[in-house]
Amino acid sequence: MPRLYALVLAGGAGTRFWPASRRSRPKQILRIFGAETLLAAAIGRLHGLVAPSDTFVATGVEIRDSVAAECPGIPPGNILVEPVARDTAGAVALGAAAVLARDPEGTLLVTPADHLISPASEFLRTVRAAQGAAEKHALLATIGVPPIRPETGYGYLRRGDALGASDGIRIHRAAAFVEKPDPARAEEMVRDGCLWNAGIFVLPLGALREAFARLLPAHAAALESLAAARASGGGFTMVLDQVFKGLPKISLDYGVMEKAGNVAVAEASFSWDDVGSWLALGRVLPRDAAGNVPRGPVVLHESSGSTAVSDGPLVALFGVRDHLVVAAGDAVLVCPLDRAADLKALIARLEAEGRSRDL
Amino acid sequence: MPRLYALVLAGGAGTRFWPASRRSRPKQILRIFGAETLLAAAIGRLHGLVAPSDTFVATGVEIRDSVAAECPGIPPGNILVEPVARDTAGAVALGAAAVLARDPEGTLLVTPADHLISPASEFLRTVRAAQGAAEKHALLATIGVPPIRPETGYGYLRRGDALGASDGIRIHRAAAFVEKPDPARAEEMVRDGCLWNAGIFVLPLGALREAFARLLPAHAAALESLAAARASGGGFTMVLDQVFKGLPKISLDYGVMEKAGNVAVAEASFSWDDVGSWLALGRVLPRDAAGNVPRGPVVLHESSGSTAVSDGPLVALFGVRDHLVVAAGDAVLVCPLDRAADLKALIARLEAEGRSRDL
Repeated sequence: MPRLYALVLAGGAGTRFWPASRRSRPKQILRIFGAETLLAAAIGRLHGLVAPSDTFVATGVEIRDSVAAECPGIPPGNILVEPVARDTAGAVALGAAAVLARDPEGTLLVTPADHLISPASEFLRTVRAAQGAAEKHALLATIGVPPIRPETGYGYLRRGDALGASDGIRIHRAAAFVEKPDPARAEEMVRDGCLWNAGIFVLPLGALREAFARLLPAHAAALESLAAARASGGGFTMVLDQVFKGLPKISLDYGVMEKAGNVAVAEASFSWDDVGSWLALGRVLPRDAAGNVPRGPVVLHESSGSTAVSDGPLVALFGVRDHLVVAAGDAVLVCPLDRAADLKALIARLEAEGRSRDL
Repeated sequence: MPRLYALVLAGGAGTRFWPASRRSRPKQILRIFGAETLLAAAIGRLHGLVAPSDTFVATGVEIRDSVAAECPGIPPGNILVEPVARDTAGAVALGAAAVLARDPEGTLLVTPADHLISPASEFLRTVRAAQGAAEKHALLATIGVPPIRPETGYGYLRRGDALGASDGIRIHRAAAFVEKPDPARAEEMVRDGCLWNAGIFVLPLGALREAFARLLPAHAAALESLAAARASGGGFTMVLDQVFKGLPKISLDYGVMEKAGNVAVAEASFSWDDVGSWLALGRVLPRDAAGNVPRGPVVLHESSGSTAVSDGPLVALFGVRDHLVVAAGDAVLVCPLDRAADLKALIARLEAEGRSRDL
């Protein structure tokens, strides 16, 4: 079985968890959901599957230091800094180049740094099954998560022909990638046995290089020249600066996976949440008897259905129903929970007014 | 006309403006309502009526330093520190003793430090009229404010026989003091021409000493011994420590004014608010087009009818209706505005849980 390498995608810079998340402190390096950051958890989850020396972390220039601080055990040379953000296809080309320079027969596990996954043991079982199927059939593999609600915020995978099962993990050919659906379509897909697209891929290098060459030729060329520069031991950063800016900004899903044709779907045996907004806190943290989600030094008095988060000040809710309150850094956010997934308009206004030094 | 002295009552230690107000930083030394503290405004308002050297400030041991800092121009010896809190009757006995030691023929204006009054010129006109009537008829005078709503949080004054008018200020005998009424009774009293009891008194020393002797003998004895100690130039603090603890805890309204019989009411020509809770902010500060009351670095986005106050952090409300949000010091409060007058239960819980170092 070819050697498995990992690429942890840690370049995200969202403000959907403002004010806890900032441009300089994105979701993957927050400790909102547990004692460790999502990034540290994503790396820790690889234990027993991929060695730290075989694990790469892709991230952006602005956050490289805070990301590196959450990667204990990962060799500094394995932190791959994208000179500019080029979405996941660019990050995967960069990661694939780093692997190719070392092991052209390798397989690359691509996993986002900012999702919640448990238990780790089932993650490993699913990845191994996906790897086996991908390498056996020369396919690009993606991992699909059985949906537990008709979520409209996720993409879906429609499954085609069965490719059997491995260690209890069912593998199918992917029939279609479906973008975020409307509520009716989401209900229908859940009924039809579609899976959530978790953005986790298992990619044999040969199949990936072939797909890049066929579908994203600029990425294919960048991958090869980056691998050559890295293998030769010199000039890698210069080549990276030169080629990366020229790449189109496109996701691996849209640029490669949806169009490749030779894609397998492994059905995850783990539970998964992309923790895409403050609403996720209510799904993943324990609630009190009144349905509140408290995190940090907070007091919820005669309050219900509310989420209160503080990284320092005492936050007291009195008679509050179904609101989100977050005190983090130099800012406080209050909004009804049903607006919590829609912070963009607020952030745009704060930005326009120059109201926060670091949004 | 006898000389007028002032006693500013600055001993209050409420938590009704928590988290902006704390035990160590009560309402009278907050700048919530304007550029200066309520205490500084109360002293400044006396300009042209009572000289700073004739102005006394009564306060408590815990807050004496922060109170003194808001009393520029007042001689340090005029800051009267109550060894323990004994409500307003005790504070007035102490202030009256300080005046008596200097001028037995004086008249004492008693005014709370933590109310909003404007304009100052009308305050002076009302006080002068009250003083004239009190001295002419040997009465204790109180100032009544024409009600502008059927407030259930205030006490009311029912007027008896007219004593004429002075400089356009109508003076009556007080027929009755009415405690905080229920809504139906409040409506009725507003209809009947009753006035709000503003807790502002104009008290000729002779009439006050007579009333204390008749109604609160322990206070009368304390007043005389304190005055003697102060006049003799020594041992005042020791006498104060000795006698003050022995006083019953009672308000001047309840202990003296309601029972004295010889009380006049002057009808105020100024506007007045006791700013008794966060709700008062919406009465006294300007609102934006959506009915919000912003104070400090706050952003109200798609929000209405809400009050947002910050002394530092950026406070952002998004889609919030009719809530109060206060970020002050080391704490944040969120509650529906209709609960804002009822913080006691919350404070009791925070206290019981030891959740805030300084409540």
